[in-house]
Amino acid sequence: MIGGHMGAAEDSQITPSRRGPRGGGDTARAEILNASIAVFAEVGYQSATIKAIAAQAGVDTKLVHYYFGTKADLFAATMSFLFADLGLRDQLLAVRTPGEGQGARYIKTALTFIEESDVGPAFLALIRSVGTHDESRRIMLTFIESVLHMIEGGEPEAQMRYRASLLGTQMLGLFFVRYILKNPVLANVPIDQLAHDIGPTIDRYLGGSL
Amino acid sequence: MIGGHMGAAEDSQITPSRRGPRGGGDTARAEILNASIAVFAEVGYQSATIKAIAAQAGVDTKLVHYYFGTKADLFAATMSFLFADLGLRDQLLAVRTPGEGQGARYIKTALTFIEESDVGPAFLALIRSVGTHDESRRIMLTFIESVLHMIEGGEPEAQMRYRASLLGTQMLGLFFVRYILKNPVLANVPIDQLAHDIGPTIDRYLGGSL
Repeated sequence: MIGGHMGAAEDSQITPSRRGPRGGGDTARAEILNASIAVFAEVGYQSATIKAIAAQAGVDTKLVHYYFGTKADLFAATMSFLFADLGLRDQLLAVRTPGEGQGARYIKTALTFIEESDVGPAFLALIRSVGTHDESRRIMLTFIESVLHMIEGGEPEAQMRYRASLLGTQMLGLFFVRYILKNPVLANVPIDQLAHDIGPTIDRYLGGSL
Repeated sequence: MIGGHMGAAEDSQITPSRRGPRGGGDTARAEILNASIAVFAEVGYQSATIKAIAAQAGVDTKLVHYYFGTKADLFAATMSFLFADLGLRDQLLAVRTPGEGQGARYIKTALTFIEESDVGPAFLALIRSVGTHDESRRIMLTFIESVLHMIEGGEPEAQMRYRASLLGTQMLGLFFVRYILKNPVLANVPIDQLAHDIGPTIDRYLGGSL
């Protein structure tokens, strides 16, 4: 269960606890994120409500809005948090430095997240409806933007944004063909093989010469 | 207008004409394809009917079903035909032989097709609904399968299918991020730049060592 790992991420600023004092903003944020993970995992994006998430976190709905904005914003923040928590942030940073296999590691972590985490289905539901549901589209844009913030630095911002967008094309297409189209070939290939074969693309988009 | 180029493709087996004899299967097929291009371009996939396409081609609806199956099959066949007609088939074959810039040429042709052809919007509508509309999903699988047939040969079939599927992940993701998500960075980059930066990915997936 991904939520259970929350406090374990070394560089996480968030320490979950049993209902901290209201003054402890980090604690309340962590409670809300934990509740958000649990609710989105249980009922999916469409059926989840801010009210249910607030109730699970033991806070007022206004506090959820205060910290995270709309349900769409909260969902994007939750996905970003989980990705960072899994080490994907570090892996994206690592891929920016020359070396072998960082892109492969990133692919492996991302696919494992989707296939094994409790919120994988909610993430796929988001991807599935990106074409027909404007809110999903905005969540995905926010999510790509959050990935950008993970890898910024080292080059002019416009170039980093471009690199992050190229990353987005490969990852979104991979998710689509494997999990939504369920193209039989791609759906049945082991993650390690995809990581090996698609990883160099990620290496080049993020750290290679374009 | 793409449809007008139909007879011009050098390796096309199809010669359009004004209502050929029924015995001329190639001619009837060409009439139906031309009508299909026109109708899908004019009203989009959802609103197009086999009846309207048959009427435009001057044939019986049964003949359309006989040659192409369902509306979904006809749409996939129409897209495949247009891609081949644009030279994409030759470019896919070329990319299988070592050399520079074949992948870039393929990207450029594909994006130009979407942005400039009359059926570009219908193709994007298909992509948009791939996640939520099972018929669109099946059309896209058929389409990817048709791309496979363009590039088969040279390696065991399973490996070629895998290469075609990898190609599919990059292309579908690129279409999604540029045209559906409309990520501002990717949406505003000139086609030539995308061709230059994403082309090597296509080269590697189709012809490189994996």
